[in-house]
Amino acid sequence: MTGEDDLIRLFREHLPAADRGVPFGDDMAGIVDAKLLWSTDMLMDGVDFDSSLHAWRLIGRKALAVNLSDCAAMAARPVSALCGLCLDRRVAPADALDLLLGAQEIAAEFGCAIVGGDTNSWDKPTVIAFTIAGACQAGNPPVLRSGALPGDGLWVSGRLGGSLLGRHLSFTPRVELALRLHRELPPHAMIDISDGLARDAWRMCEASGCGVELDAALLGGVVHADAHKMAADDGREPLDHVLNDGEDFELALALPAQAAGEAFGLHRVGTFVTRRDLRLVANGQARPIAPGGWQHAIGDLA
Amino acid sequence: MTGEDDLIRLFREHLPAADRGVPFGDDMAGIVDAKLLWSTDMLMDGVDFDSSLHAWRLIGRKALAVNLSDCAAMAARPVSALCGLCLDRRVAPADALDLLLGAQEIAAEFGCAIVGGDTNSWDKPTVIAFTIAGACQAGNPPVLRSGALPGDGLWVSGRLGGSLLGRHLSFTPRVELALRLHRELPPHAMIDISDGLARDAWRMCEASGCGVELDAALLGGVVHADAHKMAADDGREPLDHVLNDGEDFELALALPAQAAGEAFGLHRVGTFVTRRDLRLVANGQARPIAPGGWQHAIGDLA
Repeated sequence: MTGEDDLIRLFREHLPAADRGVPFGDDMAGIVDAKLLWSTDMLMDGVDFDSSLHAWRLIGRKALAVNLSDCAAMAARPVSALCGLCLDRRVAPADALDLLLGAQEIAAEFGCAIVGGDTNSWDKPTVIAFTIAGACQAGNPPVLRSGALPGDGLWVSGRLGGSLLGRHLSFTPRVELALRLHRELPPHAMIDISDGLARDAWRMCEASGCGVELDAALLGGVVHADAHKMAADDGREPLDHVLNDGEDFELALALPAQAAGEAFGLHRVGTFVTRRDLRLVANGQARPIAPGGWQHAIGDLA
Repeated sequence: MTGEDDLIRLFREHLPAADRGVPFGDDMAGIVDAKLLWSTDMLMDGVDFDSSLHAWRLIGRKALAVNLSDCAAMAARPVSALCGLCLDRRVAPADALDLLLGAQEIAAEFGCAIVGGDTNSWDKPTVIAFTIAGACQAGNPPVLRSGALPGDGLWVSGRLGGSLLGRHLSFTPRVELALRLHRELPPHAMIDISDGLARDAWRMCEASGCGVELDAALLGGVVHADAHKMAADDGREPLDHVLNDGEDFELALALPAQAAGEAFGLHRVGTFVTRRDLRLVANGQARPIAPGGWQHAIGDLA
């Protein structure tokens, strides 16, 4: 079995380098250069949402919000979006419209417009693929995953874990916070937490050529109430939910050692280090942990 | 039952107008303005390709080529692309790579680079969603669907019909021709024939507020050998294949009455008219025909 990170690595090895200003595999890519960025996210019914449980308006909202979160991760201001739909043939036109309007509403909140797309149908579950473009602020290059330095603090923008209880549909993309951080600091590196803090922090490490030590005591301060609720139900540790659930869509950032992230409402949860692994420090003991989190499995029956 | 054109109309009615330089519903949309355009196309296994029959390399080629064809339709030069994949979990990583390389090869032929994307998997058939960006030539606005005038000739860039015999996978997007036409004429309106000449010519008419008379005798001159082959097998008229098969990915254009399209290897097949319908003229008799062609059905069980 291969994970999506392995597949992306395979793709990167085989694609000729294109000079569009952003390394392949970051949250967004350059279109012509790093002034205007774009990214795409596909959501599948039964995987990323459940149309038998969730309202189409909320599903549409999520489909655009995950793209807005990519803009936040790069500190880009959302500009326009395309709406690609591959609808289960049983979805009524009124529901498809609701999906679009859910996306349109959150797009408008962020100054973004849905300007086109592609509409298809089939007899399989619905797949939604929004693409977003975001503009970087004049003179300010985008914040990449790859700029973390040993000694930087690892900070997060909010409490984590248990998002499946509902936040994965209703979260607020951290665009305004990201733009403010970008103007006033800027961060050395940034990513949005889509697949779990452990995996996404590790992605920053891999891109930056360093490692990170997560601090269990500090992580105790960012446990979301939903993580406690899920832990009470499933018997897993709340910390496990914080590290591995994903779909939090909070920012994870590398800030210079002296930066006061608290002034921006950020929470420090660890420190980037030279040693290239992911470790959890608890009671003065550091132990390696697996990146965990959510990954799409590729070719697991092949 | 609703067709995709109805759904797009519904979407357009409900989306606030966004000033990005291109009307909603054309082959591409403006990202910031009409200087840089983008579009997305989703292909589904079992609908647009068949992974049990077709090589992944050719499938990847098609997935990008349909987007290049949208660039041709607007007379935009391809710049960059994003690769969105929702892979059937049984697709091996080597096959996913083949898909990407098929796309990369034709991208490179057209000066386009695959700069990023999104990779997912599930236990349903594969969905591929490429997004492309194309740049308009300096000082030359893109060619829209909406500029056809009564009296203009309707021209096509090649023979039509029967593409399912293989051309739908191996066609050459008409980018170079489109750029040349754009520099030297330019056309009043343009579209690529993805869903059949009848439907796509009618889309030009709807956008332009006019009608078109297709000339059966002239259409007789653009019957592809594959249309004859399919007609011999299925008993339908070759002309029916020409009008309704789709996936030809040739250009259909409105040229001013006096324009000599032959100099560009184009074939005249009809005339735009004031009367807002689609008619076929044969033996001096004009009769209304249905747009026909391929449309995704939306909500047909709802």
